[in-house]
Amino acid sequence: MDTNFNSESREIFIVGLRNAHAMENQALSIMKPQVERIENYPEVADRLRRHIQETEGQITRLESVLEGLGEEHSTLKDTALSMVGSVAAIGHSMAGDEIIKNSLANFAFENYEIAAYKSLLVLADAGGFQDAERALKQNLNEEEAMANWLKENLSDVTMRYARLREAGATAKS
Amino acid sequence: MDTNFNSESREIFIVGLRNAHAMENQALSIMKPQVERIENYPEVADRLRRHIQETEGQITRLESVLEGLGEEHSTLKDTALSMVGSVAAIGHSMAGDEIIKNSLANFAFENYEIAAYKSLLVLADAGGFQDAERALKQNLNEEEAMANWLKENLSDVTMRYARLREAGATAKS
Repeated sequence: MDTNFNSESREIFIVGLRNAHAMENQALSIMKPQVERIENYPEVADRLRRHIQETEGQITRLESVLEGLGEEHSTLKDTALSMVGSVAAIGHSMAGDEIIKNSLANFAFENYEIAAYKSLLVLADAGGFQDAERALKQNLNEEEAMANWLKENLSDVTMRYARLREAGATAKS
Repeated sequence: MDTNFNSESREIFIVGLRNAHAMENQALSIMKPQVERIENYPEVADRLRRHIQETEGQITRLESVLEGLGEEHSTLKDTALSMVGSVAAIGHSMAGDEIIKNSLANFAFENYEIAAYKSLLVLADAGGFQDAERALKQNLNEEEAMANWLKENLSDVTMRYARLREAGATAKS
């Protein structure tokens, strides 16, 4: 353990872990309604469903880490983070291009999560919290895989959206 | 030009370009107050200042593209995008860990921009809009460079924040 890593930094780390816990719960509350609304993009719905499951595992993992650091589970009721609540709003009240906007917003959110875990890993490393490090790396890997998937799929979603809009316009005319 | 790329898709493309224009203006309104508030992280302030300049160039570039497509400049007054406004709120009312939260939020925002340009490039390619393609690629490259810089710098910012907090706590005791 870094000798300069004192109780102040431990507190920063724990607050960061709590924020990550709130972030993942918010991720669930963003993804779950999205999945319900998707009609024409089944592979997006499938991937979101898989990531919802992963996210539930991530939350459990973060709770274990916090418990291992002596944080009581009962205090883990997350206060709504202004940041996360704001990003959540991204996904709502979209017009027909909801699928595109949600794809962009989800990619942004995944990258927020990636940066949050990377920052926490710096603190975990400096503080010598090896169990936490393992858990955070696992969460990070899942977020990176999800972000990559969203990036890879963006071209298909964009073109399918354009085709559907064209078909709709043709049908109307 | 893709023969399936009809006027409906052209409209989608133009709406996307307008959204990008609003997004970049919002980026300015996020970054400018951040720069003013930074005290202990001069290299972050420097990089933000550089990206503010780049962003002003991106806005001009998007205006040229829209004008080239016959869109009147006077109609370019952006309506506030709910998404962008929401992400903007991320940066505000932060406690002492403002620099960390802003680093995460800026990284998320850059990635939103990256995804937006990638999606627009798919449409530009399908529609054969080569001038637009060049401009969008240039904007994309700048966003990617900024996102990479934020990612590379995250470790330093995190550790400097921890050290400053520690120093503050020591000073108080």
